[in-house]
Amino acid sequence: MSDKDVLAIVLAAGLGTRMRSKLPKVMHAIGHLPMVGHVLKALGEAEVPKVSVVTGPDMEGLTEFVSSRWPHARCHIQTDRLGTAHAALAAHEALSTHDGGVLILFGDTPLITADTVQSVRTKLGQGADVVVLGFEAANPHGYGRILSDANGVYAIREEKDATDEERMVTFCNSGIMGLSGAHAMQILEAIGNDNAKGEYYLTDAVEIARSKGLTITTAVAVEDEVQGINTRAQLAACETVFQQRKRRAVLETGVTMLAPETIYFAHDTVIEPDVVLEQNLVFGPGVRVKAGSVIRAFSHLEGATVGEGSTVGPYARLRPGASLSEGAHIGNFVEIKNATIGVGAKINHLSYIGDASVGSRTNVGAGTITCNYDGFGKHRTEIGAGSFVGSNSTLVAPLKLGSGVYVAAGSTVTEAVPTDALVIGRGRQVVKDQRAKDLRARFKAAKDQRR
Amino acid sequence: MSDKDVLAIVLAAGLGTRMRSKLPKVMHAIGHLPMVGHVLKALGEAEVPKVSVVTGPDMEGLTEFVSSRWPHARCHIQTDRLGTAHAALAAHEALSTHDGGVLILFGDTPLITADTVQSVRTKLGQGADVVVLGFEAANPHGYGRILSDANGVYAIREEKDATDEERMVTFCNSGIMGLSGAHAMQILEAIGNDNAKGEYYLTDAVEIARSKGLTITTAVAVEDEVQGINTRAQLAACETVFQQRKRRAVLETGVTMLAPETIYFAHDTVIEPDVVLEQNLVFGPGVRVKAGSVIRAFSHLEGATVGEGSTVGPYARLRPGASLSEGAHIGNFVEIKNATIGVGAKINHLSYIGDASVGSRTNVGAGTITCNYDGFGKHRTEIGAGSFVGSNSTLVAPLKLGSGVYVAAGSTVTEAVPTDALVIGRGRQVVKDQRAKDLRARFKAAKDQRR
Amino acid sequence: MSDKDVLAIVLAAGLGTRMRSKLPKVMHAIGHLPMVGHVLKALGEAEVPKVSVVTGPDMEGLTEFVSSRWPHARCHIQTDRLGTAHAALAAHEALSTHDGGVLILFGDTPLITADTVQSVRTKLGQGADVVVLGFEAANPHGYGRILSDANGVYAIREEKDATDEERMVTFCNSGIMGLSGAHAMQILEAIGNDNAKGEYYLTDAVEIARSKGLTITTAVAVEDEVQGINTRAQLAACETVFQQRKRRAVLETGVTMLAPETIYFAHDTVIEPDVVLEQNLVFGPGVRVKAGSVIRAFSHLEGATVGEGSTVGPYARLRPGASLSEGAHIGNFVEIKNATIGVGAKINHLSYIGDASVGSRTNVGAGTITCNYDGFGKHRTEIGAGSFVGSNSTLVAPLKLGSGVYVAAGSTVTEAVPTDALVIGRGRQVVKDQRAKDLRARFKAAKDQRR
Repeated sequence: MSDKDVLAIVLAAGLGTRMRSKLPKVMHAIGHLPMVGHVLKALGEAEVPKVSVVTGPDMEGLTEFVSSRWPHARCHIQTDRLGTAHAALAAHEALSTHDGGVLILFGDTPLITADTVQSVRTKLGQGADVVVLGFEAANPHGYGRILSDANGVYAIREEKDATDEERMVTFCNSGIMGLSGAHAMQILEAIGNDNAKGEYYLTDAVEIARSKGLTITTAVAVEDEVQGINTRAQLAACETVFQQRKRRAVLETGVTMLAPETIYFAHDTVIEPDVVLEQNLVFGPGVRVKAGSVIRAFSHLEGATVGEGSTVGPYARLRPGASLSEGAHIGNFVEIKNATIGVGAKINHLSYIGDASVGSRTNVGAGTITCNYDGFGKHRTEIGAGSFVGSNSTLVAPLKLGSGVYVAAGSTVTEAVPTDALVIGRGRQVVKDQRAKDLRARFKAAKDQRR
Repeated sequence: MSDKDVLAIVLAAGLGTRMRSKLPKVMHAIGHLPMVGHVLKALGEAEVPKVSVVTGPDMEGLTEFVSSRWPHARCHIQTDRLGTAHAALAAHEALSTHDGGVLILFGDTPLITADTVQSVRTKLGQGADVVVLGFEAANPHGYGRILSDANGVYAIREEKDATDEERMVTFCNSGIMGLSGAHAMQILEAIGNDNAKGEYYLTDAVEIARSKGLTITTAVAVEDEVQGINTRAQLAACETVFQQRKRRAVLETGVTMLAPETIYFAHDTVIEPDVVLEQNLVFGPGVRVKAGSVIRAFSHLEGATVGEGSTVGPYARLRPGASLSEGAHIGNFVEIKNATIGVGAKINHLSYIGDASVGSRTNVGAGTITCNYDGFGKHRTEIGAGSFVGSNSTLVAPLKLGSGVYVAAGSTVTEAVPTDALVIGRGRQVVKDQRAKDLRARFKAAKDQRR
Repeated sequence: MSDKDVLAIVLAAGLGTRMRSKLPKVMHAIGHLPMVGHVLKALGEAEVPKVSVVTGPDMEGLTEFVSSRWPHARCHIQTDRLGTAHAALAAHEALSTHDGGVLILFGDTPLITADTVQSVRTKLGQGADVVVLGFEAANPHGYGRILSDANGVYAIREEKDATDEERMVTFCNSGIMGLSGAHAMQILEAIGNDNAKGEYYLTDAVEIARSKGLTITTAVAVEDEVQGINTRAQLAACETVFQQRKRRAVLETGVTMLAPETIYFAHDTVIEPDVVLEQNLVFGPGVRVKAGSVIRAFSHLEGATVGEGSTVGPYARLRPGASLSEGAHIGNFVEIKNATIGVGAKINHLSYIGDASVGSRTNVGAGTITCNYDGFGKHRTEIGAGSFVGSNSTLVAPLKLGSGVYVAAGSTVTEAVPTDALVIGRGRQVVKDQRAKDLRARFKAAKDQRR
């Protein structure tokens, strides 16, 4: 057997009733990726060749998520919930045609790292028959303790069954386990349900292997990465750990973060070197910020690309499909959606640019709105290069402005404008001398009357 | 005597000079409720039947706040400030007609819980004459230590008077005390002022009761809930504890919070199950978010109701009187004030909707402003169901738009529009070919000249 | 020698390769001030009369920064990087004409306080020849230990050279040192480079002084203030400490902060007493908020002055040159740049006011934009006192509105308006009965066709 040929079984059938949610537990997200996705990502990074996911009945959303993102992963349904060993055997189709090592992981333990997965594989490769992944618990109360003697691990002892002496042990069971190809099926099938709840527990694998004289060893994880999630509070706690990891990784690539603790990344956020990230930023999925850009405070980005040397914010919102070229400027209270912004173009204040393209060096004035929706469909606005859109303009799509166009401030533009043309669409100013006084008197009288 | 008939005296006369503020100390707020209000709320939850609040002279604002929100509470003025026992006796009018137990609490110890109040009452009900509320101090330095022997508590020893051995005691006095109906007046009146400052200290109650052979016992609080507030830094620290408690409570009801540590609630915020709260949210008083809604990042809500399955934000501001029906959408850089938003209505970008009603399924385009103020009075804008308000529209109130109305983008609307009508109020577009070039030349020349 | 005549040498030549940045390390900012500036500020507060800064070659930006802000400081270039003692001697021009005490500090240890600088000076004044600034390390691993016996300090022992017993010492070397005028040059020049790297280490000063029978003593710093910065993560950690200090200082002046941990100050932010600061605020450099003002949540201020009793935010952005008079109101999604706002003036919603003056008591309606840029130059808008600018107005600069002017909502104003005049510049409303129905049919048909 080669330790390369490994099958990972991810147990993901839990209902998660303590989450108080209709969503399957493992579909709750960390960093905008469902937690089971984090486990699959770690397995991918560790280059585990075969992956099975055990889901519960009526979890089509989960199956669909897994299949669409990890097409090589097989999904299996555990119809009854009779314990972790029973769950692992739900992958019998995958197990029956596999003769390499087996890793069993949990969809609700999302922070497991590729390195740790690798360390379990390595122990299997070195000849272990059972590898128990343990961790040093800051407070071991409630965890199963990993008990060892000179011959290796001899038991995983649950809190309630432990002697006072055993309770002093702080090396605890994460639940994650590796089984050698030679003995995996034999051990899993030997696990019985002769216990209070009548369930099949994976932890029994240790005593079974011991009774057969097999080699049982441990690998070691950091406590953070094997935290399971059963409640919303634990979900939030794991999100915190995820964010801390991601912030550290981003800092290490040479990014300045004025207040890392106020920046929230998604699992796939890419920030290139020498970017400055100010305070209070939220990144949804699918964002890349290229080198030398500045993302100013209170900005919100999702599904967006920020070109090199651009400035975004403060208070900028880049929505999916926002694509900024090099040196673009997006300022405060500006929303960009599904729009390409040209090199050096500026949209600095209070604007909504949606379903649009803005040419390079074009300046879009404050308060400009692209009217992309007519109540039925979405339409595009195209603005050429080197144009100037005056403030408070209303651009009614579908609309095409050529290059070098000048839109007078306050205009509503509904029809195409050729290159280098000036377009005006507003009322002419009329001044009525002394009439403000009259108005004030009238409004004041009306107000007095209302009293 | 029944332990049900209890009088709570809340000492709230402190000037709080270390706050450096004109406001009476107990009127500084935690979670938008003045701190004394938190104590009164806890007493209410513990169903304490009689409440007296001892204020200082010239604290009409405090008296008014208490009387308006807790009409059954009596306010008493402590004219001179001669110590805690003297302050308690300022409630003599209430004490003289009461013969049940007495609880003495502090208006500047706002995090006391109903459960802890109840535990003091229970001890009185079990026959104690004096109940001292203590807590295990992480760092007892500076606190009065509760000294006990086989016969119960025998003294509260101040730091400066304590022996080295007594200083090892970590169980400290919170100041909060219960006195049995049979002995309350007798004990309070026996407290003298034979000390350095010539003040009457409530803590002397212990030694007096001991000398009379009365029963003295303790109840136990968590340190957090008996923190007193003397400085702005302590106020901020108590606010932090309050927020942590509230976040935990909200999580437990089945709410998803992406980053609980960035969400600030008011004392009365109600978030229903299966709501998603994104990062960086601020809740002022009087907000209810109904089930299944999503509040996106950077939103600010006060005095607002969010209907089931609605989406709010990012960067949405709901001000008092904002009332969203089921499935409403309020998007970025949108301010809603004193306005009813119909079922499924959408106001997604850069708008101000104030003093208005928006019909169900109506779509309000980006940059729409209700002009509710004419410099003298506020006026209403009413928009019917199934209407479409084009972007950058200006709606001058008072104004009534029927159902199914279509407002052309960029329009200023000043008069009523009937059902199913189209309304246009904007200049017609005029294109001047090649004139942008001329303009650029002119502006450039002017700029060169200014140099 | 008088201890008054002290020369501080700030070593600032490090490249900081671990920062992965083109900027010299000490130019990375804490609280918007380059870190070397914090050291110079502390020296200024401690009234150190002479300051030398040792920079590396090709660090003109650093030299310029120092010279422009601290004109009395001399800059010296260390051409080769041969250790800290070698760096200190790069200031030989300053040293050779100086015969008082010498302090050696580090440009990348920015959190040093004036009090600590003073304590080193005091020790020199009391007759010490060498003063080593030490700190009690929470985790001493990796730091040089300060070893003392009955005769004072006898060595600074690096981790790698320390015995197990010496490693138990938790009092560690900050690197910062004081040398008496009588022996400074003698000691610095005696330091050799007979070590693995062939560099000249300042720490050798201790053993040299000891061998000469000189007096060596220590001064004590808090660990936080002597943290050196080598990585972006350490930069962020020092920023955190800086912010905590600044928040504490602001709280102590009698400012209410609802959530201090969410407020980010610059090094020079001034907040006067009885100001209320809500959650999530960012202060860039150059901000003063006068007494009794309220800065509401999610606001961003830089280079701005807020007059007494003003209200700013939520979501207000004050940019450089924003100057608010007493009682001004700046509301949500409003940007103010280079503009004077008069007493009691109000700009409450969704506006951009740039390069402008707004008269006292003037009300600027929602969605008002000053069009200050024509694509080539910036122009000013002046609005007189007691005016009313209707919502969604477009003010095309250069523009002058008199006092008491009334701008009708939705107007574009391009020419001057005299005092007390009414100005209207918008299309007249046209209603087309039943046409909304037709439009809907048309749009729907178009949509169906697109499918």
